[in-house]
Amino acid sequence: MPRDPRHDILFEPVKIGPKVARNRFFQVPHASGMTNAAPHVRAAFREMKAEGGWAVVSTGACSIHPSSDDSPFPCATLWDEADLRSHMLMTEAAHRQGALAAVELWHGGAAAVNRTTRHAPLSPSGVPWMATHVGFMSSARPKVMDAQDIRDLIRWHAEAAVMAERAGFDILYVYAGMGYLPYQFLLSDYNRRTDDYGGSVRNRVRLVEQLIDAVREATGGRCAVALRISMQELRGRPSEVAPSEAHEVIEHLKDAPDLFDVKMDYSATDCAASRYTAEGSHEPVVDFLKTITDKPVVGVGRFTSPDTMVSMVKRGVLDLIGGARPSIADPFLPKKIEEGRVEDIRECIGCNMCISSWHDGVWVRCTQNPTAGEEWRRGWHPEIVRKDGRGQVLVVGGGPAGLEAALTLARRGHEVALADAAREFGGRLRWESRLPGLNQWHRVVDYRMGQLRKLPNVTLYPESTLSAADVRDFAADHVVIATGARWLPHLCGANELPSVPLEAPRVYTPDDIAAGVVPEGPVAVFDYDNYYLGSAIAEHLVGKGCAVTYVTTAGAAAAWGFMTNEQPLVHQSFAAKGIALRTLEVVTGFDGERLRLAQIFSGEAREVAVRSLVIVGYRQGGSALHEALAGVMPRERLHLTGDALAPGAIVHAVYQGHKTAREVGVSAADARPRRDAPFAPRDFQMPEAAE
Amino acid sequence: MPRDPRHDILFEPVKIGPKVARNRFFQVPHASGMTNAAPHVRAAFREMKAEGGWAVVSTGACSIHPSSDDSPFPCATLWDEADLRSHMLMTEAAHRQGALAAVELWHGGAAAVNRTTRHAPLSPSGVPWMATHVGFMSSARPKVMDAQDIRDLIRWHAEAAVMAERAGFDILYVYAGMGYLPYQFLLSDYNRRTDDYGGSVRNRVRLVEQLIDAVREATGGRCAVALRISMQELRGRPSEVAPSEAHEVIEHLKDAPDLFDVKMDYSATDCAASRYTAEGSHEPVVDFLKTITDKPVVGVGRFTSPDTMVSMVKRGVLDLIGGARPSIADPFLPKKIEEGRVEDIRECIGCNMCISSWHDGVWVRCTQNPTAGEEWRRGWHPEIVRKDGRGQVLVVGGGPAGLEAALTLARRGHEVALADAAREFGGRLRWESRLPGLNQWHRVVDYRMGQLRKLPNVTLYPESTLSAADVRDFAADHVVIATGARWLPHLCGANELPSVPLEAPRVYTPDDIAAGVVPEGPVAVFDYDNYYLGSAIAEHLVGKGCAVTYVTTAGAAAAWGFMTNEQPLVHQSFAAKGIALRTLEVVTGFDGERLRLAQIFSGEAREVAVRSLVIVGYRQGGSALHEALAGVMPRERLHLTGDALAPGAIVHAVYQGHKTAREVGVSAADARPRRDAPFAPRDFQMPEAAE
Repeated sequence: MPRDPRHDILFEPVKIGPKVARNRFFQVPHASGMTNAAPHVRAAFREMKAEGGWAVVSTGACSIHPSSDDSPFPCATLWDEADLRSHMLMTEAAHRQGALAAVELWHGGAAAVNRTTRHAPLSPSGVPWMATHVGFMSSARPKVMDAQDIRDLIRWHAEAAVMAERAGFDILYVYAGMGYLPYQFLLSDYNRRTDDYGGSVRNRVRLVEQLIDAVREATGGRCAVALRISMQELRGRPSEVAPSEAHEVIEHLKDAPDLFDVKMDYSATDCAASRYTAEGSHEPVVDFLKTITDKPVVGVGRFTSPDTMVSMVKRGVLDLIGGARPSIADPFLPKKIEEGRVEDIRECIGCNMCISSWHDGVWVRCTQNPTAGEEWRRGWHPEIVRKDGRGQVLVVGGGPAGLEAALTLARRGHEVALADAAREFGGRLRWESRLPGLNQWHRVVDYRMGQLRKLPNVTLYPESTLSAADVRDFAADHVVIATGARWLPHLCGANELPSVPLEAPRVYTPDDIAAGVVPEGPVAVFDYDNYYLGSAIAEHLVGKGCAVTYVTTAGAAAAWGFMTNEQPLVHQSFAAKGIALRTLEVVTGFDGERLRLAQIFSGEAREVAVRSLVIVGYRQGGSALHEALAGVMPRERLHLTGDALAPGAIVHAVYQGHKTAREVGVSAADARPRRDAPFAPRDFQMPEAAE
Repeated sequence: MPRDPRHDILFEPVKIGPKVARNRFFQVPHASGMTNAAPHVRAAFREMKAEGGWAVVSTGACSIHPSSDDSPFPCATLWDEADLRSHMLMTEAAHRQGALAAVELWHGGAAAVNRTTRHAPLSPSGVPWMATHVGFMSSARPKVMDAQDIRDLIRWHAEAAVMAERAGFDILYVYAGMGYLPYQFLLSDYNRRTDDYGGSVRNRVRLVEQLIDAVREATGGRCAVALRISMQELRGRPSEVAPSEAHEVIEHLKDAPDLFDVKMDYSATDCAASRYTAEGSHEPVVDFLKTITDKPVVGVGRFTSPDTMVSMVKRGVLDLIGGARPSIADPFLPKKIEEGRVEDIRECIGCNMCISSWHDGVWVRCTQNPTAGEEWRRGWHPEIVRKDGRGQVLVVGGGPAGLEAALTLARRGHEVALADAAREFGGRLRWESRLPGLNQWHRVVDYRMGQLRKLPNVTLYPESTLSAADVRDFAADHVVIATGARWLPHLCGANELPSVPLEAPRVYTPDDIAAGVVPEGPVAVFDYDNYYLGSAIAEHLVGKGCAVTYVTTAGAAAAWGFMTNEQPLVHQSFAAKGIALRTLEVVTGFDGERLRLAQIFSGEAREVAVRSLVIVGYRQGGSALHEALAGVMPRERLHLTGDALAPGAIVHAVYQGHKTAREVGVSAADARPRRDAPFAPRDFQMPEAAE
């Protein structure tokens, strides 16, 4: 099917200084978690996007000097020849696929507390970032940069630029965003200097200008120079000469870089979870840039709709469509639009499992795309599966794992039968995606059902509850059991282990609420799962008219939701909806009237009057069907997967379902992943900061 | 001075199966954070302890299989030939120094959620560990191990044992502690199996027995086999046939291993902070082992007193004196006892900065020993400094940084003058070590003052406030300014940045409390520093008779104290002392009567009636003396260090003071650290778990 001509504009080339992007799809810098320690994994991860049609692929933050060490959080480095070789793998891969390669030169300043290199952190004025998240906290406060430190910082950028050009990068970023060092000079909260670099906006912009000039001079104008800049705080600050400090900053810088990459200032607003924030949420902050500068502008907003992308270009908001999350969920998004296969796009659901990976300090993971990060290690391609499938496979269970397994098995060429007890496929997502804010998560089902319905070798069996005898009679060559997990009404001990089931009136689990139970109010939701479901159920019950108290073992509501950028917004939602919040408590008893609680560390007892209790904590996998078949089917023909194997988030279920499907009929030896390792000259000398 | 004969017993050799430890000092397995990614750094870190007289040096947890992947937390691996080569560096180093080398074979089970390898976690019964700390949380729940999984686990231990012997290890640990997989089989909270591995203690012990047998068989009895086991929970559980389940477990296992390494179950009790827990705190839990088994027993308890060590041996509690923290603070602890130089011991202060490093995911750091982790990278030896110092150095400021700088400069051979405005040296520790629980922290001062007083080339100038003119008149070749930092009465914004100073009656900073102010009660302590000081001041003020409310931006009191194992105990202390706790709030205003607060995420406003406010948040370094001298002294002769350079914890000040002292008069090129890199065969194939 030919491309919709309305989308042609997205495939126009764009000049970026001395370089030309082949189209408007720009994979902006984003964390991969892979670092220089896994250079082949990283290069293959980025190459897949270039193969999928992105005109530019970028690194994540790439430290230019040991005084910018963000450990334990993963970041790339560009400090020495070994680092240079590591990045060359990626630039060669990008060029092989016709894409430009960009590098985000990065100095974290006060936000990078150098836990491993042990340099004193640098800052304009000694103002630290005082994180409320324990993993981000540090007792190391930054040094005030003197004139020599500023000269050093400019020189480090120039030296890194020279290395970056040698490594093959086409576009070199100066990064003045997200609380990092050049941004700290722009914002008066951090910058309290009284020299030429502080005070007026003119002075605060000076360092960024000098960094851009230094990078351009160091590379003789041969590379494009991009400026990545955060506008959220600056746009909110009044200026005497412009509509805001953001306008004033861009007025000063309008001719300096070859490209503007504009974004928000904080992870939770920049990479906003779909649960509380719609596609295109940056626009009100970044829409003014093109009224000031003639340079091309790239920005993001979790864009997956080509019509929205076209609108961003036509309305003069952006010249290039930035993608981070959508490029992970579907590296082939540009190709699919180009080829008129919009319905094949594996749309980002905005769950933010990807950014959680960085907050967690590990490789990027994606709910929609289980092959992300596995391109080199396991040889998984997101679009291509080896067509080696022989015979029939019965997949029992049509939730995220079963759908993914069925799709991948069908692509391998197997005859696939997919059975589910319910009328609709989707498993836990049938209900969970109807909870407040979670409707976009249903894309996990929509994409897979859309693909499955196209495949001639797939038969769907809804409303089919299968016994072990049914399965045996079906006589498939392989059976995949993906029947999911169930929630248990267990309490949690002070040792942070699930303890015993609570026997009392009106005690419910999420499975009960999914089945339609509306508990008698007032209701307490006791959440020791601490991801999204407990808080989403609290919101859901308020919508049903219940008075709700949310109790958690952790220090905040949806505590792990910090990782996915949901947590601050959960608190805002609770305040707006009148949900009472109790933290650091375990439920010790309930009699249908009084909920007994204990402070988790001190054991101090408290009580709350509620009529019902929903416990969101402990899930159990396993499958009676699997147990019944295990005794009578050969081990190599029977496969347990997804939540039934090991309960997890949707990301785990999809990954497990994909892995199972890739490995059906494959020997363990052939399924072995490769192990990556960095380039490593021995006894390499590291540059030292002047302190 | 000869050794005290009472300590001779500590230098008796001890037979451990087929091996002999040269004395009773045993560096038990502990996290270094270095992993196989920094094999030279790690080998040198362990070698220093062997050089310092420890009879055994051990690795930290060493994963035996990719299904035990604790990322992002650092752990060693023993999966392949590259890993084997990495560990050989350490075993060769240990042997070179006459020590035995031990390896802790480790499988984390449900506690290792395989964020990078992406295996389904393993467990006896699908019971997860539901951490309340966000960094430890996961949504991945474990798989229930079937019979094949158990056979695999035993085989992986055997295969790892073979590799460990080839790598040169003398002692191979089976690790049944701290919530990891074999421990999960021992404890009924985790183990709900109904087969031969569950139910009775006899059955729950079976796996551990089989692992010990497998490791011994795989290495033909040539290596010693140690069992590391946690006894805290088991000792509290009744048994029908023994005083406790712990007794019953040891009765079953008493002849199985060649060595018992006994410990507690949870980091906060195992590696207990000195703030709330005394030396030797494990004894009541582990004292019974030697009444049951004839095998040697090693245990820990932050032992730094040789008399306590002797008592542990003589009273039949332990055969070997385990050391983790004290071996980091002073790798030469055994040598110093052996040589009768007990007063030279750099005693561990129990601040737990070391374990915080692991919780933080980075290399070990030590407040007392700034050379820890720098043995290879910077060539720093804890006892030996190159005697290259020429001329006189004036050190201004006798806090942790100044003391460390003065000592190291004196050891280099400089003439050192150390001046402080106060009568007593110690800086912030003069007051802070008098706060509840912090008295052992004064060892930082005691050790350095003891050493400085022995050195003929050091002159101490207490009660000496120096002006710039005084310093110039002194005419030292180098001047080191270590005048510390001061606390500011700034509020904190919702963007987690310090904002503006609060102007109101009865607003205090820690500096005011240090100066003796006892605020009019009721008092609020607003803590956005979130390490120990805010909660310690709250405790101090209760001791002065104040009613105290503690307010923090974080989700728990002393939130970063989670990293140092203080946080649960802070909550217990608050409950015991009646300190009211308010979390996730920022102070927005105070008029001397009403404290205005806002929920940090939602902005929801609250009020509390208090008369005084102590703000523990923002510290500023800098030095008027340094600024005055900077214009008139050559840059290379004037050195700003410690909190005055960049405010931090004591660990940062001591490190910075040491670094400054090492680098006075040394060129930047000569001070450059080395950069380590792992052994790395390309395209190595990783073993795959059966799933």
